[in-house]
Amino acid sequence: MARELTVSIDAMGGDSGPGIVVAALARSVLRHPATRFILHGDETALTALLAKRAKLADRVSIRHSAEQVRMDEKPSLALRRGRNTSMWRAIESLKNKEAEVAISAGNTGALMAMAMFQLGVLEGISRPAIAAIWPTRRGQSVVLDVGANIHCDAEQLVDFAVMGAAFARAILGLEQPSVGLLNVGSEEVKGHDAVKGAAHILRSAALPMEYAGFVEGDDIADGTVDVVVTDGFTGNVALKTAEGTARLVVTFLRGAMRRSLLGRIGGLFAGGALNALRRKLDPRTSNGGIFLGLNGIVVKSHGGTDAMGFASALDMAIDMAESGIITRIIADRAGIGLATAAAS
Amino acid sequence: MARELTVSIDAMGGDSGPGIVVAALARSVLRHPATRFILHGDETALTALLAKRAKLADRVSIRHSAEQVRMDEKPSLALRRGRNTSMWRAIESLKNKEAEVAISAGNTGALMAMAMFQLGVLEGISRPAIAAIWPTRRGQSVVLDVGANIHCDAEQLVDFAVMGAAFARAILGLEQPSVGLLNVGSEEVKGHDAVKGAAHILRSAALPMEYAGFVEGDDIADGTVDVVVTDGFTGNVALKTAEGTARLVVTFLRGAMRRSLLGRIGGLFAGGALNALRRKLDPRTSNGGIFLGLNGIVVKSHGGTDAMGFASALDMAIDMAESGIITRIIADRAGIGLATAAAS
Repeated sequence: MARELTVSIDAMGGDSGPGIVVAALARSVLRHPATRFILHGDETALTALLAKRAKLADRVSIRHSAEQVRMDEKPSLALRRGRNTSMWRAIESLKNKEAEVAISAGNTGALMAMAMFQLGVLEGISRPAIAAIWPTRRGQSVVLDVGANIHCDAEQLVDFAVMGAAFARAILGLEQPSVGLLNVGSEEVKGHDAVKGAAHILRSAALPMEYAGFVEGDDIADGTVDVVVTDGFTGNVALKTAEGTARLVVTFLRGAMRRSLLGRIGGLFAGGALNALRRKLDPRTSNGGIFLGLNGIVVKSHGGTDAMGFASALDMAIDMAESGIITRIIADRAGIGLATAAAS
Repeated sequence: MARELTVSIDAMGGDSGPGIVVAALARSVLRHPATRFILHGDETALTALLAKRAKLADRVSIRHSAEQVRMDEKPSLALRRGRNTSMWRAIESLKNKEAEVAISAGNTGALMAMAMFQLGVLEGISRPAIAAIWPTRRGQSVVLDVGANIHCDAEQLVDFAVMGAAFARAILGLEQPSVGLLNVGSEEVKGHDAVKGAAHILRSAALPMEYAGFVEGDDIADGTVDVVVTDGFTGNVALKTAEGTARLVVTFLRGAMRRSLLGRIGGLFAGGALNALRRKLDPRTSNGGIFLGLNGIVVKSHGGTDAMGFASALDMAIDMAESGIITRIIADRAGIGLATAAAS
């Protein structure tokens, strides 16, 4: 338990700036008494914020960086001009082995580009992916890729399956997670070449997961499988469609309650239940995206998050660093190669 | 006002069989006093069902067909062996000009295959698409393709935009519908070649629609645009993800209400509001898929629907037949060709 671990933080990312990052740290130091934190960002602003938090003094160090990546900046531009940004420096600490994990609430594309450039991709993995934790009828599932890769071939989808399953074992505590490929039908003949090819490989590979075949969009919320694998285009659309739908249903419900007297009375009594629902659906509690497949652990917190959300993303980052997830991914991916070679 | 129109019905499609079809007809004849119906299916079963509905006697004719397409049958097999099925015959009546519109609650893939084979695709349109009507924060939007085409190039997406806009003008009553291309971001640099290429064409074409650029998954439920255009893989996943999410949120809400006494009391009072919400989200009220781009009007009712849902799909089919939507699509598609030719 509690070995010393260091988290490198881009303190300037996200819509709300360093205030919420420092407030999140105040929560996190209590939960992780042996963890240290490096804050990258504007030294003056960070020093002022830390001055009010005595408990953070001996656990947090500040590294000044003069610039920051804008939320709407093109990743290629950020990569070219961004060596003095807090985001670049946060990843650099990871590359230099000063920290075991990096976290940012900033521009997702820029964070992925900088992380790939500095850390590189894990041996045997073709491309990194962004995984999201999804609330389901049965608990939580992992869905990936939700935005890193617009095009994916069969081998990449297989990589995502390996990485998602390793994540589910390490973080969700499942020994033999079930894995499904997102498709437009569950029959074997359905879908495009990439999903069919990935299904073929996964059916024959000996892996610490249960390959469950094709799943459809409604299987995500139903929690039919623990890990849902798809390309970054489809995954991103599915994630945002689900977020929009959840908000819409809650709006419809409020409207329906306001429209009748009984509904209004019910709404008064049911306020607590509605709040519980809002918490369950709140992106702050299953916050952010997990970058998998890099030679280092990088977590992207939601850009519009608050201190509670950033603290939750910090928890995830620390859990991942402690779980040895990278070693698992490398071993599992190598296992597929061996199984495929043995089969052919 | 009521000109005489004939609807050709596959009475054997869907999970529930001809009982719900005849019950739906009993509703529909009241709403459409000048419409006639041809029922394709098992003569004995249909005669027995009609015997109980005196009002249908002079409006409905039965055509016997000995076979039916199974819900899980491969479309290619259904097409090969299916000339004696109720589904084939329902489309055949349309082809023979005995009816202006065909409807089935059966196997979607088989229905599309048979419709394409018998009716053919509209001149100038590369592939037909399936459109869905989607409840949104601002009313209803049209989303297409939700499952007919796994792969789509730029030209096909443009065709879908034309067809979706024509549908929105004809059925939703919008003079100048706004049209968005579903993508992983709203910036011009985002996405794959097909959406970028379609955006390029739509920006320069003179069409009776307002091209609104790229939209994201959450824009569907927000109703940001009237018509959302995407490939059939992404659209199908988005549709099913939204359905699954809506069901999940309602389940969470019931659970949250049951867990507290106040919530349970609120639930009693709010029961009516919850029921109103369920109706709003009910697939029966915005039921089924609309096949666009065929040389004839074909509507697919939801396979698991009841009489109310099938009647709602019948309404849609009759509205489409009366709207002259096919003429509009042909004229609009030709307009793009002229505009592109003039520009080059």
